[in-house]
Amino acid sequence: MDALAPDSIHALSAAERAAIYRCIFTRRDVRSQFRPDPIPDAVLARILQAAHHAPSVGFMQPWDFILVRDPQVKQRLHAAFQAANAEAAEMFEGERQSAYRALKLQGILEAPLGLCITCDRSRAGATVLGRTHQPEMDIYSTVCAVQNLWLAARAEGIGVGWVSILRYQDLRAALGIPEEILPIAFLCLGYVSEFLPAPELESAGWRKRLPLGDLVAFDRWQGSGPEDGLLSLLRDGGVCSLK
Amino acid sequence: MDALAPDSIHALSAAERAAIYRCIFTRRDVRSQFRPDPIPDAVLARILQAAHHAPSVGFMQPWDFILVRDPQVKQRLHAAFQAANAEAAEMFEGERQSAYRALKLQGILEAPLGLCITCDRSRAGATVLGRTHQPEMDIYSTVCAVQNLWLAARAEGIGVGWVSILRYQDLRAALGIPEEILPIAFLCLGYVSEFLPAPELESAGWRKRLPLGDLVAFDRWQGSGPEDGLLSLLRDGGVCSLK
Repeated sequence: MDALAPDSIHALSAAERAAIYRCIFTRRDVRSQFRPDPIPDAVLARILQAAHHAPSVGFMQPWDFILVRDPQVKQRLHAAFQAANAEAAEMFEGERQSAYRALKLQGILEAPLGLCITCDRSRAGATVLGRTHQPEMDIYSTVCAVQNLWLAARAEGIGVGWVSILRYQDLRAALGIPEEILPIAFLCLGYVSEFLPAPELESAGWRKRLPLGDLVAFDRWQGSGPEDGLLSLLRDGGVCSLK
Repeated sequence: MDALAPDSIHALSAAERAAIYRCIFTRRDVRSQFRPDPIPDAVLARILQAAHHAPSVGFMQPWDFILVRDPQVKQRLHAAFQAANAEAAEMFEGERQSAYRALKLQGILEAPLGLCITCDRSRAGATVLGRTHQPEMDIYSTVCAVQNLWLAARAEGIGVGWVSILRYQDLRAALGIPEEILPIAFLCLGYVSEFLPAPELESAGWRKRLPLGDLVAFDRWQGSGPEDGLLSLLRDGGVCSLK
């Protein structure tokens, strides 16, 4: 945490910054480590407030939150996952399919809380400041709310898993979501036995973490930049020592 | 920060959690307060690492980062904003149009750094774990990277503004982004003279913050829940005292 610019008087303290990076680098997509302990209302209120303070286009706040604790609803969602997952597995062949089938990809029944975050695209009327030329911005705002909640949950010791192996029509049917509302994320939440040291797909050899230096360009797509500055920092990885 | 569950041994410390909430609640979309001081490479490396540690579907890491410092490229983007903004203003009528025109909505020329974050949908091949039934998941992953970066930047004292009043074709042309790559966000970054106490659109009376209690439902869309627990906490707003 060395190179704080001398003029950045509005930065958080070094200890606070370390907390932010610790939270970001130790956040995981949790599928297998959920414990049944309920999440206290005061904790849940805080992480929902975190979501509600995401950026939103035109200050639209297009999100709604459906908390799922009813075992029957969870069973319906789990069955929907199983149907979709059987199809998804068939998309891979040979060893890759075996590897896929060996992965546990959700904790719908074990997690004490399900949470669906939706986007109401009509919340601020037909014309929304900032959405005219990039009409997806309200959806992106809702995703920012998901990520805020995910980080706040990590800070509270609560694991979050985003279950995307679900057909949207099944998710809508299970939760009674009307046609005009867009479901964005179905999440599983709960305290955990551990936060794994690395993403499960990385540990399982499914895919490697990409070298960040390869993903950074200058002034245009794939534009090159000086190798002795930012790129060398990204390649040496030392900036990630907080991980 | 009272109600930490006794079993949440993996929670961050009370001081760390306070830092996370402070960062989330004081993050702003910055348009007017940019200072010209350059962002040191070590700081930039950290906030890019934060983005790179976002969740991604199938550990796909579909993002690329184009850093924009070239004044000519900034001028082109600013002209593109002006063209789009003239159209956007016409979408509003009467007093609302006057109010719109009075808002400053971007800091492309003042911010020392522009940053375009893109999504390469083909990065992990045609079949991606977790994307089969929800094909937007790679785009959502990229938005999570934007939000991670935004929070890390706030911690460093760096303001971020998301400029969505741009036609995608103009953004592509200015940065040479090929057809198969999806631009997700164009951001302005820089140290700031201040982080405003509230979102500018809220202070300007454009829209109010919605009461969070109205956005939470139980077990199904608009399903009701007990009024004496979570909802009363959300309504009393005390959980937001860190703001």
